[in-house]
Amino acid sequence: MEPYELSLAEAAGAIAAGGLSPTELTGSVLARIDAVEPRLNAYVEVLADAARRDAAAAEREIAAGRRRGPLHGVPMALKDLIDVAGLPTTASSRVREHHVAERDSTVAARLAEAGAVLLGKTHTHEFAYGLTTPQTRNARAADRVAGGSSGGSAVAVAAGTATFALGTDTGGSIRVPAALNGVVGLKPTYGLVPVDGVVPLSWSLDHVGPLTRTVGDAGLVLAALTGREAPAPGGVAGVRVGVPRNHYFERVTPEAAKAVRAATARLADLGARLVDVEIPMADHIQGTQWGLMVPEASSVHEETLRTSLELYTPDVRLLLEAGEHVLAGDYLRAQRARALMRQEWARLFAEVDVVAAPTVPMVAARADQPAVAWPDGTIETVSDAYVRLSAPANITGAPALSLPVGVDGAGLPIGMQLIGRPFGEATVLDVGRAVEEAYASLARPAPLAA
Amino acid sequence: MEPYELSLAEAAGAIAAGGLSPTELTGSVLARIDAVEPRLNAYVEVLADAARRDAAAAEREIAAGRRRGPLHGVPMALKDLIDVAGLPTTASSRVREHHVAERDSTVAARLAEAGAVLLGKTHTHEFAYGLTTPQTRNARAADRVAGGSSGGSAVAVAAGTATFALGTDTGGSIRVPAALNGVVGLKPTYGLVPVDGVVPLSWSLDHVGPLTRTVGDAGLVLAALTGREAPAPGGVAGVRVGVPRNHYFERVTPEAAKAVRAATARLADLGARLVDVEIPMADHIQGTQWGLMVPEASSVHEETLRTSLELYTPDVRLLLEAGEHVLAGDYLRAQRARALMRQEWARLFAEVDVVAAPTVPMVAARADQPAVAWPDGTIETVSDAYVRLSAPANITGAPALSLPVGVDGAGLPIGMQLIGRPFGEATVLDVGRAVEEAYASLARPAPLAA
Repeated sequence: MEPYELSLAEAAGAIAAGGLSPTELTGSVLARIDAVEPRLNAYVEVLADAARRDAAAAEREIAAGRRRGPLHGVPMALKDLIDVAGLPTTASSRVREHHVAERDSTVAARLAEAGAVLLGKTHTHEFAYGLTTPQTRNARAADRVAGGSSGGSAVAVAAGTATFALGTDTGGSIRVPAALNGVVGLKPTYGLVPVDGVVPLSWSLDHVGPLTRTVGDAGLVLAALTGREAPAPGGVAGVRVGVPRNHYFERVTPEAAKAVRAATARLADLGARLVDVEIPMADHIQGTQWGLMVPEASSVHEETLRTSLELYTPDVRLLLEAGEHVLAGDYLRAQRARALMRQEWARLFAEVDVVAAPTVPMVAARADQPAVAWPDGTIETVSDAYVRLSAPANITGAPALSLPVGVDGAGLPIGMQLIGRPFGEATVLDVGRAVEEAYASLARPAPLAA
Repeated sequence: MEPYELSLAEAAGAIAAGGLSPTELTGSVLARIDAVEPRLNAYVEVLADAARRDAAAAEREIAAGRRRGPLHGVPMALKDLIDVAGLPTTASSRVREHHVAERDSTVAARLAEAGAVLLGKTHTHEFAYGLTTPQTRNARAADRVAGGSSGGSAVAVAAGTATFALGTDTGGSIRVPAALNGVVGLKPTYGLVPVDGVVPLSWSLDHVGPLTRTVGDAGLVLAALTGREAPAPGGVAGVRVGVPRNHYFERVTPEAAKAVRAATARLADLGARLVDVEIPMADHIQGTQWGLMVPEASSVHEETLRTSLELYTPDVRLLLEAGEHVLAGDYLRAQRARALMRQEWARLFAEVDVVAAPTVPMVAARADQPAVAWPDGTIETVSDAYVRLSAPANITGAPALSLPVGVDGAGLPIGMQLIGRPFGEATVLDVGRAVEEAYASLARPAPLAA
């Protein structure tokens, strides 16, 4: 096995044991980038020289007996919404062409402090305002969307061109590309991970979190981001797993539903208690998500819509311009719906510890596919389909993990979502680890053939 | 001295010592209501029989050795936005003509639990959306406004027709009428006192709090409302008192400025340290306050604006209808200004413990006065003038106390405002108590002549 294929925990273990050096690992990942990045286009910019320098510095520190922890000397990528002092933060947009960050974002500073090696900045759907990331190819199939908006980060982790990465998630932007590329993505509880120095999309829904190859790795990165110890892993015996009877299995492909139900059944075999649950206010999810996001996004872009309108891509420009006409009353209706939805989900989490559901209703769409037609006659845009099942965790702020639980007939990954109560990351990770172990063959999704 | 003239602490002390009974006290206050309420019109409804029954019940409990605390057997009034099970909550509006509350608001339940005796519900500017309360007369001068929106509660406390009362404060609605009637009003930290069961005006700015005759009384009522012990009173030696060099002494009558500066000087005599401070973002205060309040208020009234438009008074209807046309972008600009303003005030409260300033820029306006002209040529509506100095504490959520510090040439009260850091009520009350002691003659404002 090549070093670029290792999980973060494996790489950290090998580095700690002296069997792998940070320069070897970083060199292996950079070679992998050389080999596959031209087809994938996951990166806005690769900082090969700086990464080699940082890896060498980490190596010296570790050799001198000053190992900082599991991230020390491990190469990673940051979604290009995340400020790193002295580097441009392009948000994959021409609008930001001349931007250079003055200061590190808190998350970049914390990863640097933990000794992680920055490989470069990854592509986002422009300004994180979309679910496909059209610049980037899916790591599993070149004709499929990468998913978004953290498409570059998910593809890099899936393809072996980063050992882990950070993304952001406003309506599913960590979990959707994680699911579509067969990796793990964690959207932490709203407010747990600082978002300063991260280009906002919609501040009341924005989150930063890790994309990794294993559930355990997500826990390691989260610990570095929050500055807290990773909690000791627990089992799932007695954990109450909510199985939605509405919303989450509606307009979902049979293969996705089947894979998620099979994974849920495995949890029951391991001693978890399955509880049938009703998802509250399901008819209000999409209206609330868009009702909050659209005006907030336009507010963020208020100035550049005046000065740089022609530099936006057409789909993002359309959404931003539309958002300027939303009435305060409509926004406030969405805010009030959110308040009610939070209350109702809090009631739900009195009955269960996690909710288990599909992350997305279908595998990665073809890059040229504008919409999805469902057997019940509904037609929805690809973006609407991808946001439908992930949005509740943005609206409520609850932590949500996506992990792979199989592939469809064409070999495209299927993602399972585990949603927990606010600040219940430890339980979400425990349940995710149990699923992952039950699917040992999926714990390391096969990287893209070289 | 008649029992209706006693402060809450004095009444409680006399009841505890057996020198005054709850029925005597309530009877005295009800007689005072009979005498002066016809002129004042502070009450929407007086519940004399129920009050007598509750006082008798309190008396029996106390006689049986089960005294609940300082509020037990003390008669009080609730602003008629505050639900009491089985009673109408009219919000002083024809729109609510057929409303009856099903449940107690938390604040009403906590006062009932503390044994307070409900005298009745007091007038508010319709739906709390105004600063004058035109139905009610000022307790000090019949031709002057009561102030608002908690005009009825302030007038009742000032006139001896309630030993204490509750009001609500969205832009100054506790502090403004407290100042204009010469009583004490406390707007606690946002979120400290529950607002459930209280008709909202603008949920991100709404607060419930006490109107009393002394600062100590405000602390006693706050303790009952929060279910926490009142902290032991402290001194002011070494307390850093911020004296604003901008905003708070601009467009303020010389008499108001002089009285507040004199009270501040007394604090320095007592060992407080005066610190010159710059009020941040002063030019954004009014825009932020109205930018948040107007669309939120219209959102609250969305349904009744469709069904009962003709039942609103013209001034409130105009504001509510205007609010329906506000764009989300304008509201969000106000939200963002608030976030910045909170940060800046937090920085200010690293330098000082309280800010001392006038509560309102002038004494009670004449009832028929629409606007104020200032020497610098500015003309503003009476409402704009009254909200200008109180709004910052609503926007930032900081606790703010108003207490009397003198009268003008015509005998009309002047109010001083003490603004503290969030959850710093204890310090605000300590400083208020020191001012009050320095003005012993004002500790009990002379009640209206019978």
